[in-house]
Amino acid sequence: MLGVYLDTLRQRSALVHNITNNVTVNDVANMVLACGASPIMSDGPEDVYDITSICSGLNINIGTLNSITVEAMSIAGRRSAELGHPTLLDPVGAGASRYRDEVCARLLSEIPFDVIRGNVSEIKSLAGTGGTTKGVDADAADAVTDQNLESMVTFAKSFAAAHSCVVAITGAIDLVADADTCYVIRNGRAEMSRITGTGCQLSGLLASFISANSSSILEATAAAVCAMGVAGEIGWTFMQPGDGNATYRNRIIDAMYHMTGEQLDEWAKYEIL
Amino acid sequence: MLGVYLDTLRQRSALVHNITNNVTVNDVANMVLACGASPIMSDGPEDVYDITSICSGLNINIGTLNSITVEAMSIAGRRSAELGHPTLLDPVGAGASRYRDEVCARLLSEIPFDVIRGNVSEIKSLAGTGGTTKGVDADAADAVTDQNLESMVTFAKSFAAAHSCVVAITGAIDLVADADTCYVIRNGRAEMSRITGTGCQLSGLLASFISANSSSILEATAAAVCAMGVAGEIGWTFMQPGDGNATYRNRIIDAMYHMTGEQLDEWAKYEIL
Amino acid sequence: MLGVYLDTLRQRSALVHNITNNVTVNDVANMVLACGASPIMSDGPEDVYDITSICSGLNINIGTLNSITVEAMSIAGRRSAELGHPTLLDPVGAGASRYRDEVCARLLSEIPFDVIRGNVSEIKSLAGTGGTTKGVDADAADAVTDQNLESMVTFAKSFAAAHSCVVAITGAIDLVADADTCYVIRNGRAEMSRITGTGCQLSGLLASFISANSSSILEATAAAVCAMGVAGEIGWTFMQPGDGNATYRNRIIDAMYHMTGEQLDEWAKYEIL
Repeated sequence: MLGVYLDTLRQRSALVHNITNNVTVNDVANMVLACGASPIMSDGPEDVYDITSICSGLNINIGTLNSITVEAMSIAGRRSAELGHPTLLDPVGAGASRYRDEVCARLLSEIPFDVIRGNVSEIKSLAGTGGTTKGVDADAADAVTDQNLESMVTFAKSFAAAHSCVVAITGAIDLVADADTCYVIRNGRAEMSRITGTGCQLSGLLASFISANSSSILEATAAAVCAMGVAGEIGWTFMQPGDGNATYRNRIIDAMYHMTGEQLDEWAKYEIL
Repeated sequence: MLGVYLDTLRQRSALVHNITNNVTVNDVANMVLACGASPIMSDGPEDVYDITSICSGLNINIGTLNSITVEAMSIAGRRSAELGHPTLLDPVGAGASRYRDEVCARLLSEIPFDVIRGNVSEIKSLAGTGGTTKGVDADAADAVTDQNLESMVTFAKSFAAAHSCVVAITGAIDLVADADTCYVIRNGRAEMSRITGTGCQLSGLLASFISANSSSILEATAAAVCAMGVAGEIGWTFMQPGDGNATYRNRIIDAMYHMTGEQLDEWAKYEIL
Repeated sequence: MLGVYLDTLRQRSALVHNITNNVTVNDVANMVLACGASPIMSDGPEDVYDITSICSGLNINIGTLNSITVEAMSIAGRRSAELGHPTLLDPVGAGASRYRDEVCARLLSEIPFDVIRGNVSEIKSLAGTGGTTKGVDADAADAVTDQNLESMVTFAKSFAAAHSCVVAITGAIDLVADADTCYVIRNGRAEMSRITGTGCQLSGLLASFISANSSSILEATAAAVCAMGVAGEIGWTFMQPGDGNATYRNRIIDAMYHMTGEQLDEWAKYEIL
C-alpha cells in the first residue's frame, strides 16, 4: 500500500532543494521532475538560505565536496531543520577519505536529518562499525544477504535509533528502518549499479517523497526505495538490442515519469520485520 | 522567414562562450553543437577574459551561483561588451533569493546585455513589478495568456526599452520584443517543462543564433525561440511507448541537430504585434 | 591483438580517480563504468589525497578550471605519481587562454604523467610549436592527414620522448606514440565531434585501460583509443531515423558497455610505424 505516497507526491508537486554533486546533478533533477516534484539545485553559501526557505524539503549529497559547497550544506541544513522541512543526507563515499568523514560528522552534529540514505559500507562507516568503503560503491563483504539479514535489520534499527532518523541502506536487498520497524525491499536489478548516480537519483526521489509526505517519513521512504527499484525493473523491459548503461539510465527515469501509485503497489516486493 | 537565421548559423559555425549552471551544462553544450555552433564552457575568473576574447558571443546563466562564478560572469560580460560581442543574460530564479537579485542587479549595471531571456516570473522580478518567482519555474499566476496578451506585449516592449535590449519571455506563449516590435510565438509543448534545463538549452541556442547573426538580434532571437519550440514538436513525433522526460530531452536535441532553415519556416507559428 | 587489454580491464575492475570538468563529468563516469572500471570524481583539495590513494589511476582534465580545482589537480597528481599509479593529463583547450597554459606548465613540472591525450592543436600548444587552438576543438589547419603523416609521427615520438610519456593525439587519424613506436589508428566517425565530451570520455576510458594494464602503457593506450573509435562505429549502426548527437552520445557508451576484447580485435584498424 505504498502507492498512495506516490499519488500524494504527484498531487502536491513539492519544491525540493538539492545540494548534490556535479557528476549526477542533471539526472537527479530529471528524476525529481519525473516523480512529479520540482527541483532547485542551488549550492552557493550566499544563495541557499533563501532557496531552502521557499522549498518543502532538502537533499544533501556529499558526492563532490569543497569548502564552498560544505558551507552551503551547513547553512541550508540548519535552515531546513529550523523550518521543520524533511531533510535528507546521502553520505556518498563516507569512509573513503578523512574529509568526507569530517564533513559527515559536522553535518550530523549540526542537522537533525530525517532520513539518511547510503549503501551499506557508507552507513557502517557513519556508525563506526568497520565498514570497508572502497570509493563510492559498497564493498561486497558488507552486503546485506539472506544469510545476515536478521543481524543487518537489527543494525539498521539501532542506527536509526541512535540518529533519531529513518535509515535507508540500499543494495541488492534494501533496508528502510526506524528504531522499531524495518522494510526489507527486493526490487531493482543488478545492472542499475553500472549506471553512475542511481543512488543519487534515489536520494532526490526520496527527498521528493518525504517533502510531500512529511507526516509519514518511514512509509514514504520505503515507497521511494521501492519506486526506484520498480523503475529499474520497468525500464529494463524497454531495453532493446545494443542498449547499455547510458540508455538504461534514461529508461529508468522514463519509467518513473509514467509510474502510477497503482503500478507501484503491483510491482513492490517487500516484507516488514 | 526566420529560417535564414538558422541557415546562417550553420554556415558560420560560431564559437560561443557559456557560463552556465552545473545542472544543465552538458545539455547546453550538446544543444549548441546541435544547431551548428561550437561551445566553450569556461567559468573560472582567471580563464574567462581570454576565452571570451576568442569567441563570437557570450551566454551568462545564473542557475547555480557562488562567489567564484559570479566574478567570472562579471569579467567575461564586461570583456564581451567591450568587444561588441552579442551577450545574453538568463536570470534563472531571479526573485527566488536576495543573492540572485543582487547578482542580477550587478550584472545589469555592469554589462549592456543584447538579450535577456527568462520565464515571465523572472522577467517581472527584474522589472520590479511583482513577479512571484517560486524557484526556477514560472508561477502560473504570472503566465502570458490570450486574455492578458495585449498588456504583456506592452510590458515586454517597455522592459526592452528600459534595458535597451531584446527580451525573450518564454512559456506556453513566448514573447520576443524590442522597444517597438513583439513576436508572439506559439511553438513548443507543455511536456518540455518536465525536462530540467530546456530554458537553459534555449539560452545556449539563442546565444548561438545571435552570435552568428549579430546585425539582426531581434529576428535571430525570435528564430531561436521558434526553433526550440519546433525541436520540441518534432522531437515529440519520435517518442515511443514508455519514453518519458529523459528520452524526450535527447529527442529535442536530436531534432535541432537535423533541423533546416526550411523546416523551421514550415513549423514556425508566430505573429508580429 | 589489443583486445586483451580490454579483457584484462574487465577482469580487474580498476577504481579510477577523475578530476574532470563539470560539462562532461557524467558521461565520463558512465563511460568508465561501461568499460568495466569504477569511477570516483572528487575535485576538492581537502578530499583528493585520500581518494587518489585508494584508486589505481588518475585522470586529470582541465576543461573547466578555477583556483580550487587546480589545487586539487596538483595534490592528486603528485600523490598519484608518488604511489606509482598511472596518471593521465587531458589538456583541454591548451593554447586557448594564458591560464590554461600556466596550469599545464605547472602540472607538467610537478607531475610525471604517464599519458598525455589531446587533440593536435592542444598537443602542439604544449610542445610550443605553434598549434592554433581555437577553443576546445582542433584547428583544421593542424589536422593529421595522410599527407603530413610521416612528419606528425615524428612529432608525436619527439613529444613523447621530451615528456617521457606516451602521447595520444586524437582526431580523424589518431596517433599513439612513445619515443620509439607509433600506432596510427583509423577508427571512429566524424559525427563524434558533434557530441560534447567524446574526448573527455576517451580520457576516462584511457585512464581505466592504463590503470588495469600498468605494465603496458603504450599498448593499453592504443587499445583505449581504438576502443573509443570502435564504440563510435558500433554505436552508429544502432542509429534510427531522427536520432542526432544526443542519442548518438548514449549509443557510443552503450557500445562500450557490450564490447568484448574479441570484438575490439575484429574492428580495430591500425598500423605501427
